[in-house]
Amino acid sequence: MLKERIAGLLDQRLSGHSLPRDFYVDEQVFQADIEAVFETDWLFACSTVEIPRPGDYLTLRVGHNPIVVLRNREGEVVAFHNTCRHRGSQICLKERGRANRLVCPYHQWVYELDGSLINARQMPEGFDTSAYSLAPVHVEVICGMVYICLADEPPSLERFRAGVTPYIAPHMPDRTKVAFTSTIVEEANWKLVIENNRECYHCAANHPELLVSMVEFALPDDPQAKTQFQGLMDRSTARWDALELPHKPADGGIEFRCIRLPFNENTVSFTTDGKPACNKLLGDFTEQDLGSVRMFRVPHNWNHFLSDHIIHFRVLPISANRTELRTTWLVHEDAVEGVDYDVEHLTEVWMATNSEDGMLAENNHRGVLSRAYRPGPYAPSEFMLTHFTDWYAGKMGDYVGTPHRAVAAE
Amino acid sequence: MLKERIAGLLDQRLSGHSLPRDFYVDEQVFQADIEAVFETDWLFACSTVEIPRPGDYLTLRVGHNPIVVLRNREGEVVAFHNTCRHRGSQICLKERGRANRLVCPYHQWVYELDGSLINARQMPEGFDTSAYSLAPVHVEVICGMVYICLADEPPSLERFRAGVTPYIAPHMPDRTKVAFTSTIVEEANWKLVIENNRECYHCAANHPELLVSMVEFALPDDPQAKTQFQGLMDRSTARWDALELPHKPADGGIEFRCIRLPFNENTVSFTTDGKPACNKLLGDFTEQDLGSVRMFRVPHNWNHFLSDHIIHFRVLPISANRTELRTTWLVHEDAVEGVDYDVEHLTEVWMATNSEDGMLAENNHRGVLSRAYRPGPYAPSEFMLTHFTDWYAGKMGDYVGTPHRAVAAE
Amino acid sequence: MLKERIAGLLDQRLSGHSLPRDFYVDEQVFQADIEAVFETDWLFACSTVEIPRPGDYLTLRVGHNPIVVLRNREGEVVAFHNTCRHRGSQICLKERGRANRLVCPYHQWVYELDGSLINARQMPEGFDTSAYSLAPVHVEVICGMVYICLADEPPSLERFRAGVTPYIAPHMPDRTKVAFTSTIVEEANWKLVIENNRECYHCAANHPELLVSMVEFALPDDPQAKTQFQGLMDRSTARWDALELPHKPADGGIEFRCIRLPFNENTVSFTTDGKPACNKLLGDFTEQDLGSVRMFRVPHNWNHFLSDHIIHFRVLPISANRTELRTTWLVHEDAVEGVDYDVEHLTEVWMATNSEDGMLAENNHRGVLSRAYRPGPYAPSEFMLTHFTDWYAGKMGDYVGTPHRAVAAE
Ligand code: FES
Ligand code: FES
Ligand code: FES
Ligand SMILES: [Fe+3]
Ligand SMILES: [Fe+3]
Ligand SMILES: [Fe+3]
Repeated sequence: MLKERIAGLLDQRLSGHSLPRDFYVDEQVFQADIEAVFETDWLFACSTVEIPRPGDYLTLRVGHNPIVVLRNREGEVVAFHNTCRHRGSQICLKERGRANRLVCPYHQWVYELDGSLINARQMPEGFDTSAYSLAPVHVEVICGMVYICLADEPPSLERFRAGVTPYIAPHMPDRTKVAFTSTIVEEANWKLVIENNRECYHCAANHPELLVSMVEFALPDDPQAKTQFQGLMDRSTARWDALELPHKPADGGIEFRCIRLPFNENTVSFTTDGKPACNKLLGDFTEQDLGSVRMFRVPHNWNHFLSDHIIHFRVLPISANRTELRTTWLVHEDAVEGVDYDVEHLTEVWMATNSEDGMLAENNHRGVLSRAYRPGPYAPSEFMLTHFTDWYAGKMGDYVGTPHRAVAAE
Repeated sequence: MLKERIAGLLDQRLSGHSLPRDFYVDEQVFQADIEAVFETDWLFACSTVEIPRPGDYLTLRVGHNPIVVLRNREGEVVAFHNTCRHRGSQICLKERGRANRLVCPYHQWVYELDGSLINARQMPEGFDTSAYSLAPVHVEVICGMVYICLADEPPSLERFRAGVTPYIAPHMPDRTKVAFTSTIVEEANWKLVIENNRECYHCAANHPELLVSMVEFALPDDPQAKTQFQGLMDRSTARWDALELPHKPADGGIEFRCIRLPFNENTVSFTTDGKPACNKLLGDFTEQDLGSVRMFRVPHNWNHFLSDHIIHFRVLPISANRTELRTTWLVHEDAVEGVDYDVEHLTEVWMATNSEDGMLAENNHRGVLSRAYRPGPYAPSEFMLTHFTDWYAGKMGDYVGTPHRAVAAE
Repeated sequence: MLKERIAGLLDQRLSGHSLPRDFYVDEQVFQADIEAVFETDWLFACSTVEIPRPGDYLTLRVGHNPIVVLRNREGEVVAFHNTCRHRGSQICLKERGRANRLVCPYHQWVYELDGSLINARQMPEGFDTSAYSLAPVHVEVICGMVYICLADEPPSLERFRAGVTPYIAPHMPDRTKVAFTSTIVEEANWKLVIENNRECYHCAANHPELLVSMVEFALPDDPQAKTQFQGLMDRSTARWDALELPHKPADGGIEFRCIRLPFNENTVSFTTDGKPACNKLLGDFTEQDLGSVRMFRVPHNWNHFLSDHIIHFRVLPISANRTELRTTWLVHEDAVEGVDYDVEHLTEVWMATNSEDGMLAENNHRGVLSRAYRPGPYAPSEFMLTHFTDWYAGKMGDYVGTPHRAVAAE
């Protein structure tokens, strides 16, 4: 019955327009989102440098599912459902921690870092521990980014890996460390949070801090762009070509996007003065002015890779009208706080921008609740919202068992 | 299925008794209330003097529907659904504000004060702005009171207008200004909030501040009233007749009520000392002792018109167990705060009374939740609750498509 | 449809294992819990000494049902649904209070302490007050413990009464007084709160304060116990036999449990130093070292009876993921605070233990929400959880109209 309702909503949808109301506000559709999207696709969990040593772990919640991501004794990143096989207690309770073995805090069943149960005190003679391993979650690591998948049979990530690695690898994310993390909750549907991020049509009036350095254009040949931008673009790409840094849009279709774009003239980083956020550059870079690699992957993750720092953004849905946004700033592993970088200078642009975007998404959500809301047309500069909603409609079409409804954009 | 359930609940209902439990506590019935009542009938929004100049606006939320009421360039009051035709953001974000044009905070689409879209930056050549006006909401202004209706075809307000105008017009509400507003949220169903207001059976034990000046009786010939009251009534009506001020109950049926009743001996206003709340009298009045015009209209609005001030009460449902009450005090437009009136002296009786009523409604709600709750008989002094619940049952009967169940009161 | 779903969940259940996920987290199953368990079975309300004099009352909420327990003029404990027969207001508003008669705060209908309506002011001539008594709730008092039952036909309590009276009566609960009460809310299903209480498998790692004095073993012949415990047990039972205090496990089946067990060597009470919590012993006791009578009764009540104090624990479900725990400490009626006992010394062990258990239950609840949660096997020391869940499954089987599914434990 829910699937029929969703099929009906998909029939109403017109590509190139915002989604019909119930996709954004209905709690039942939200449950379908979790099953159709968040329990089937690859999700960004964290950076590998957040869990550098064996036993380091990080927890997150995908829908109602508590997950723990950790580094095992072999140094590999693995993930498990964070629910004990005895009576279901959460095992790892902190957001980030370290454990020699995973010991359930309730009755101290002990699991190896590979998820196998190695001790269950007081259980009777003949109790078969091998039947009670932690349920595994699939993991892929791409350029320091840990992706997890809760599906039994995860889809392939290889096209994505091949597409983004050339852009990201030169920033050497493995040689970074966490400088700061921030988690906020927005009273808005997760798709409104993503749509907000996928366009800069709203930037001019809302993001004074961001626009110090960021150009509003999403493509080298943006039709809205002025001649001045073309000059900046040409000078930048010439320099990047000389450094053999890729910059043209990757061929990610509606699955992912990866591109290097310049900062405004005389600015080199996401700071309120446009100056570098960290004096120690990433990897082997000697040049500060590398613009930023902007990378997005459905359903919920965007990132910036600069000469001096990396920022990861992770969106997790809580309910139809609540969404968590976690932001992580990485700098060179040898950078010294207070010497090479200042946390406030490093983070203030995106702390402010996240807060501004949160208010925009919340106002959007409240307006979409209206029975007078009608899906409206995306502007040309919102082309990535057409990509995102087409992708989403495809996932929901798969979920409800109707063919993907690809409606030609007007 | 919900409609069948509601029809079943209506069948259980006995006129002259409080409603069956689920009408007060069930979230699905609440959704039906919004559709059957709040999205079809006229609702009190505000006073015209809250938005005196072109571009002044006031926002409210009817169920999930954000609404903006504003004065256009021609000086007329108009209203729109406060949701942008681009991607649905709320446009006006403050409770009261002023705008030369309505500019959406998200991507700055610009609407004229008549709701027409006059600029949508970056939209492609040939984009037809005329197809993207704000969705209008019907407006009627009666003696300075702004009523709105979300229905496509609003019912007639003319009987109401004709009925109440003679009582209210002499108080000249157009020549007032806002002295104070208060908004509180009560953890009770909106109908319990209205029922609480529609009787003074509870006043003696609960409203010491109110009973300084207010008589507990709702009709000139109240059978509970003492001889003393009859004397007060006779003297008052003689004086009002001499001033040509109407006072007898208007013929509003179960739709509305309008009547002028005296204050207690030696009191003339809703103050803790019974003295005037404002020395500058409304309109052309020279006589302080005019009692008060008590006006109520279904579903959710009551008002008092005195010689020296006006009070509007507006109830808005939030969920089955949460209700917002907004109260507005108006005084003569030339009255000077601190000279002619003191805000605390003006407002303390109804601030206290609202708070006391809020607790009564909350206790009522918690008791109605009991499976042992049985609809009980209204007392004779609660005759207006019979009117209200009969009216409500009629609206719900229309909604579920069964004939109006008019059950004779015992 | 809900009943069919629950029947399906019961079919999945394996005795000796924690319950299938939805029994713990689903709001609809929670409503069934209220109807199947809390509105049919006997519930612990309070101690008689909390309402010592005629007119003393105590209120509680069973699901959505507000209840008032009071002592009538004859000195008997009676209970009523705390909802007025006029328009349903709650009548008694405080958690504990005293009233000569029950007067509804809304319109002052007056009820005698036997629930009969004796005055309804302003009601018309011929109004039949006898038709508007408060709805009664069944009450049984067993050794100072007040049990209530909301069912029309309550089940028999006689087996329970006969079983526990010999253990409890010597502690003379009628000659106690309240020293302290505490109420906390845990974000966990009520059954997880009960399961947490029914085993001490989790004690060693989580309850340093409790294990000062409490032995972790639940039976005299606990197979986990060391020889040392057997010595303690033998010495204790010899002493109790000499005092004619019963100690062997009562034959309560899965309905109740009653047993006397010793404290650790050199400790005699639930205190952080193991010393007595109150110098004035209960009843006619002269011997401090009496261990404690541990008494539990389904669905929601456990208790400790010591030489120097009594503790009652009452669990009330609020929603699928919220549960209230109320704890009451009783000491001899002649004990003087600050002289014979110190409230902090008396309460700190169980205040700490309740708080620790609350966190364990909350972590358990969050982990059970996972779709990877699988019911796991109870350890031998968790045999009381098998009792509890078998009992619960029987109640739910009755509710959904399928035969009691008694599945043999592995
Ligand atoms: S729930 Fe993990 S050891 Fe018991
Ligand atoms: S939502 Fe209003 S301009 Fe975009
Ligand atoms: S509700 Fe109790 S007297 Fe009216
Ligand atoms: Fe933004
Ligand atoms: Fe009142
Ligand atoms: Fe415990």
